Amino acid sequence: MAPVRNGCVIFNEIPTGYPEPGRTVVYDGHQTIDPDTVPLNGGFLVKILVLSIDPYMRGRMRDPSIASYEPAFPLGKPIDNFGVGLVVRSENVEVDVGQHIYGFYPFREYSIFKDLSELRRGRVLGTKEGLPWSAYVGVCGMPGQTAFYAWCEFSHVRKGDVVFVSAGAGPVGSTVIQLAKQAGCKVIASAGSEEKIAFLKSIGTDVAFNYKTEKTLDVLRKEGPINIYWDNVGGESLEAALDAAAQHARFIMCGMISSYNSENDYPVKNLSQIFAKSLTLYGFTVAILRDKYIDRFYNEVPRMVAEGKIKFKEDASHGLESAGEAILEVQKGRNKGKKLILVAEE
Amino acid sequence: MAPVRNGCVIFNEIPTGYPEPGRTVVYDGHQTIDPDTVPLNGGFLVKILVLSIDPYMRGRMRDPSIASYEPAFPLGKPIDNFGVGLVVRSENVEVDVGQHIYGFYPFREYSIFKDLSELRRGRVLGTKEGLPWSAYVGVCGMPGQTAFYAWCEFSHVRKGDVVFVSAGAGPVGSTVIQLAKQAGCKVIASAGSEEKIAFLKSIGTDVAFNYKTEKTLDVLRKEGPINIYWDNVGGESLEAALDAAAQHARFIMCGMISSYNSENDYPVKNLSQIFAKSLTLYGFTVAILRDKYIDRFYNEVPRMVAEGKIKFKEDASHGLESAGEAILEVQKGRNKGKKLILVAEE
Repeated sequence: MAPVRNGCVIFNEIPTGYPEPGRTVVYDGHQTIDPDTVPLNGGFLVKILVLSIDPYMRGRMRDPSIASYEPAFPLGKPIDNFGVGLVVRSENVEVDVGQHIYGFYPFREYSIFKDLSELRRGRVLGTKEGLPWSAYVGVCGMPGQTAFYAWCEFSHVRKGDVVFVSAGAGPVGSTVIQLAKQAGCKVIASAGSEEKIAFLKSIGTDVAFNYKTEKTLDVLRKEGPINIYWDNVGGESLEAALDAAAQHARFIMCGMISSYNSENDYPVKNLSQIFAKSLTLYGFTVAILRDKYIDRFYNEVPRMVAEGKIKFKEDASHGLESAGEAILEVQKGRNKGKKLILVAEE
Repeated sequence: MAPVRNGCVIFNEIPTGYPEPGRTVVYDGHQTIDPDTVPLNGGFLVKILVLSIDPYMRGRMRDPSIASYEPAFPLGKPIDNFGVGLVVRSENVEVDVGQHIYGFYPFREYSIFKDLSELRRGRVLGTKEGLPWSAYVGVCGMPGQTAFYAWCEFSHVRKGDVVFVSAGAGPVGSTVIQLAKQAGCKVIASAGSEEKIAFLKSIGTDVAFNYKTEKTLDVLRKEGPINIYWDNVGGESLEAALDAAAQHARFIMCGMISSYNSENDYPVKNLSQIFAKSLTLYGFTVAILRDKYIDRFYNEVPRMVAEGKIKFKEDASHGLESAGEAILEVQKGRNKGKKLILVAEE
């Protein structure tokens, strides 16, 4: 086989506001690779099939001197995130050609790894549930894990609880909504377009509203008080949830996309509700709960998805050239489902 | 015995900023009572010895249409709070003359009650530890209970933890500091005067600083990161603590005096640290932990206080006429120790 293109997506410039396609990250299609002959030095060669685009990636587009929970993207190097790849050659006895591996990949069509640990504990996926590989970066990947782990750990759910989920149409929010419905809750959820509201209704959300046309506080005052708030958004949604919280409500603090593209977080003005209502706010990142829940997750969630008990929606872009635009879409909330990039066919 | 004065402190006007002595509450010395002949109707007559002045009382000076964790003070009626009273007559077989009872009292020299439940589960105090009755509204009363209960419940302390306590010189803060020292922690604490700093040092605080002359953020960046933050203050202290928090730090959200006298809470701008650092924020009011810890509290804390293992400092005013000024002092942080009113000698 002759050398083939080995395109990649390079972190080119630290953005000040929203990331700009073609500037913040740039696509480089000049490199090539010969999959048949490239030396593996005892490792294995992966052809990337699908890569995930997630909100948290914005936080990695920063000056590396600023500490945070995920390392900054190094300038001039490919960005990286979760994906699914196909092993096309292997000299590692623990990795077989033809296996599909979930892990943390550079945004490059082909990559060589020494072992699975280089993929952040890469996981060989089976196919027994018959789901598309793309599902394994969404509802069956990091976003689904985020929802499942923290719901199990922090919700302390009781039947009849009123749950509010912001950014409900995303892969985390929509999984949380369906877990909450299975637990017998009334679910209120917000999203930013009529198409997303329709999706929220299709997965059983009791009260779905467009935060751009209805005030979150008005909805929560009418439909609350709320016992559980799943916060993907921060800012005004968090402020409204504090206002509408019941005594002893649990706040699961998953993210704050409303502030990822501005200098400071939205200044929430009613934090005294935290002690006045005896609230507990649980901040977390998915990694801290992984060891406790990962086996249960892979045993339970893909099966529920395959059986239609957890529905999901994807919004795929095609080819690594689309990464810059896809990243911006997610930050702007313009995506119509779990954003992912289909990099290659098998 | 002839009728005697039965002075009281009336809630007169809802304040907009700081409460104003002689306007927000007014002293009324015109009423009288004859302790020997006043009808008890099966109840008992209490002569109030000491009343507590606490920061949270500001929250009760509001329009009653605004819901909160404690009822608003009714306009035109005596304010009420924790105190210690002496039973001077009784027709209730469960209450004996000469007993000292801790409970929730109107700010009035004498009051009649039907039973102990009218005092919010009034508690008959023994004298076996030889402490002054005033201690039972401070380190051995609600503030000490607040500190003890929530420290036991939420700190998840490990030896070597770095603990930051704001408003450290108050009765809650100073009790927390000493419990933290007993647990083998490094303790950083803030207060607003040199006299308070001296007290903080005298109780073993490792790093005591005046937040009016040193920036909290600078101190915490130098002395942290912190594993536990006990928040009595909110606002800038909370913001600095979020900045200086270690991964998995616990925030015990006890109060926010920095905002009690303004329209809105200080707008904290770095709430994304909650998920970025996997923090847990525990909001509470003392009542929610009472049943779990009250017996342990009375078994352990008065003894530790009597043995000098927990030190305390009081700032007493004399007579109910001083209530308005005492309330303002506490809101301004001008008090020099646990603020209380010595209403009468035995």
